Amino acid sequence: MKICVLGGDGYCGWATALYLSKRGHQVAIVDNFLRRQWDFELGVQTLTPIQPLADRLRVWQELTGEAIDLFTGDVTDYEFLSSALAAFHPDAVVHFAEQRSAPYSMIDRKHAVFTQINNVAGTLNLLFSIKELQPDCHLVKLGTMGEYGTPNIDIEEGYIRIEHNGRSDVVPYPKQPGSFYHLSKVHDSHNIMFACKIWKLRATDLNQGVVYGTVTDETALDEALINRFDYDDVFGTVLNRFCVQAAAAHPLTVYGRGGQTRGFLDIRDTVRCIELACLNPANPGECRVFNQFTEQFSVLELAQMVQAAAGKLGVAVKVDHLPTPRVEAEEHYYNAKHSRLLDLGLRPHYLSDSLLDSLMNIAIRYQDRINTSLFLPQVKWQNPHNTLGRTVAPAAVATPGGD
Amino acid sequence: MKICVLGGDGYCGWATALYLSKRGHQVAIVDNFLRRQWDFELGVQTLTPIQPLADRLRVWQELTGEAIDLFTGDVTDYEFLSSALAAFHPDAVVHFAEQRSAPYSMIDRKHAVFTQINNVAGTLNLLFSIKELQPDCHLVKLGTMGEYGTPNIDIEEGYIRIEHNGRSDVVPYPKQPGSFYHLSKVHDSHNIMFACKIWKLRATDLNQGVVYGTVTDETALDEALINRFDYDDVFGTVLNRFCVQAAAAHPLTVYGRGGQTRGFLDIRDTVRCIELACLNPANPGECRVFNQFTEQFSVLELAQMVQAAAGKLGVAVKVDHLPTPRVEAEEHYYNAKHSRLLDLGLRPHYLSDSLLDSLMNIAIRYQDRINTSLFLPQVKWQNPHNTLGRTVAPAAVATPGGD
Repeated sequence: MKICVLGGDGYCGWATALYLSKRGHQVAIVDNFLRRQWDFELGVQTLTPIQPLADRLRVWQELTGEAIDLFTGDVTDYEFLSSALAAFHPDAVVHFAEQRSAPYSMIDRKHAVFTQINNVAGTLNLLFSIKELQPDCHLVKLGTMGEYGTPNIDIEEGYIRIEHNGRSDVVPYPKQPGSFYHLSKVHDSHNIMFACKIWKLRATDLNQGVVYGTVTDETALDEALINRFDYDDVFGTVLNRFCVQAAAAHPLTVYGRGGQTRGFLDIRDTVRCIELACLNPANPGECRVFNQFTEQFSVLELAQMVQAAAGKLGVAVKVDHLPTPRVEAEEHYYNAKHSRLLDLGLRPHYLSDSLLDSLMNIAIRYQDRINTSLFLPQVKWQNPHNTLGRTVAPAAVATPGGD
Repeated sequence: MKICVLGGDGYCGWATALYLSKRGHQVAIVDNFLRRQWDFELGVQTLTPIQPLADRLRVWQELTGEAIDLFTGDVTDYEFLSSALAAFHPDAVVHFAEQRSAPYSMIDRKHAVFTQINNVAGTLNLLFSIKELQPDCHLVKLGTMGEYGTPNIDIEEGYIRIEHNGRSDVVPYPKQPGSFYHLSKVHDSHNIMFACKIWKLRATDLNQGVVYGTVTDETALDEALINRFDYDDVFGTVLNRFCVQAAAAHPLTVYGRGGQTRGFLDIRDTVRCIELACLNPANPGECRVFNQFTEQFSVLELAQMVQAAAGKLGVAVKVDHLPTPRVEAEEHYYNAKHSRLLDLGLRPHYLSDSLLDSLMNIAIRYQDRINTSLFLPQVKWQNPHNTLGRTVAPAAVATPGGD
């Protein structure tokens, strides 16, 4: 298949592009390198020394003989996006090209507005360009399990049958997102569902859990292909951050009691889920939702697993309970369905001792790059005006509807 | 009370500002006159000859002795909005300042993106400025009944208790909006609900039905105070449009079979509902939702009522069934609850023969201003690229997050 990966220079996007290329698909990456710009803005860097994309792509081609096309530009620029799609003519577009950090969106008003405009306008542009240029192309959109929040009932995959006052209907599952970023994904989901309805587009909305791990078979081929490993309080995901904290013999920073329960998955399952969605496209007019995770854990359970893994390596770390910077339930019911990707053939990499060992080893290998000042949360949800010290303005907001 | 009306130069906003002023509240209007600009863009004008806002306000003060403050600017400009709120220091902000036409949002990509950015960024700015400047101020936000779509179960007021797999929770009512405009209101509702949760703001989200009528006690005081009366296919609401069509002896343009059922209300009830919401504010942290309409009708029922009213005036009009330009169910279940405003004391003006007579009389009085070329729908939902002939680009999109 011809698959276009928007945001293919990012954490999930890079691993996905290589995996799809290795599996014989013809791959193009679209990226504007805004993720790298945010590292400069926040004064942070990935634990692993990632290479410029041009170098990554050159090494990949040298090692595998597979070329990956590159279109450099911004999906909020409709003329750029539509010309890239017209040139590549994909069967599927995988859309990772969004601002994906909840804390980043909660820094202040400018970051909140930027996140929502960037994500919503980019996705609207994509829907219009698919409709105009290639209406049969399958949109594979990354949503988030965070769209659902933590309701006191089971979380279904996108839709729920409601019996009410003697009548019944299947309706979109009610959303209770927990940050301006998560809200942007909810807005996207509503827009995509509507576009499928009126234009008979095909879409799969993948509500992904929290991703951990960094190594995939493809990125392991050469150090020049190494993936991002974010551990800072803004872009770091929780399990990756705990491993780096352990490698630095720093207490693991659990927010509140740590009963916050979420769905998690290994990045090797992320890339496989994307391929499964592409190989089994939605029907015209269908907006399908898959919950993309493999296991549920509470944050405290993860901390205790990392503590044990570190102990095996002779590193004693304690677990610190910090006041949560978010507004969230610290203990709650959580039972989210996730059978549809399994039905398509996903064989999960469950979180194991050996995976934790490997993550710890990566963290130890690059421990001279660890900046321990990035561990503690600085963005507080109740403060509409966080000053991180290291933060300047977000990248200029494009004018997606104008010009 | 001190009440700030954002969008106070528009159809509902103007009637609301005068009503609140007459009732003894201290009123300020914030407006950027974009609604008047859209008339130029689309080559349309209101049936009634509205006066410049400065003249309207001067006449109001001469007649009543009541001054209404005016802040001219755009709510997507945070510095402007926050300085206006800081200067006026309102107890309640009534937010009408959004692009409110479904067909306008469906013209093409630029109008869709403009509508969502304008509405979402404006409301985000308002939430941040209330939090920063006056967190006790009550936000009264105009949503729309169109957020709910037409589910096959009863529509509740904002929230619904779901029993599922032996468990139970009260969650936001699932939304299935029918245009990029209606989607923008859904996005707003989610953002407002979240802001109330994290910052303990007070908000009332008024999901308003389709408004009809133009005369209120206040606008009737002098012709210089006359309100808008839109009948074109883009901004005209259905009952007003039917009356103007009847006055021109033009067939009434029912889309499809006409079984589309919606909630409706008289503009005299709109203004009272707004006051009731202001006088009975939400609690801190509460995001309340009221369904603001008084009666349900199908479009065909309305056409038949107008046909009968016209017949009494000796005007014979027929009802034309045009292919619907929208993507919508032409027959469906519809039962929407609307008791909360009644509980607060609303005494509805139900649609009556005398009201229809009065609407017909207005339409006849201004019939030399009727442009019959504006009656037929030109914006088709399935076409991502409508060319109205009379349409140019939308007003430049502001850069709400940048600079």
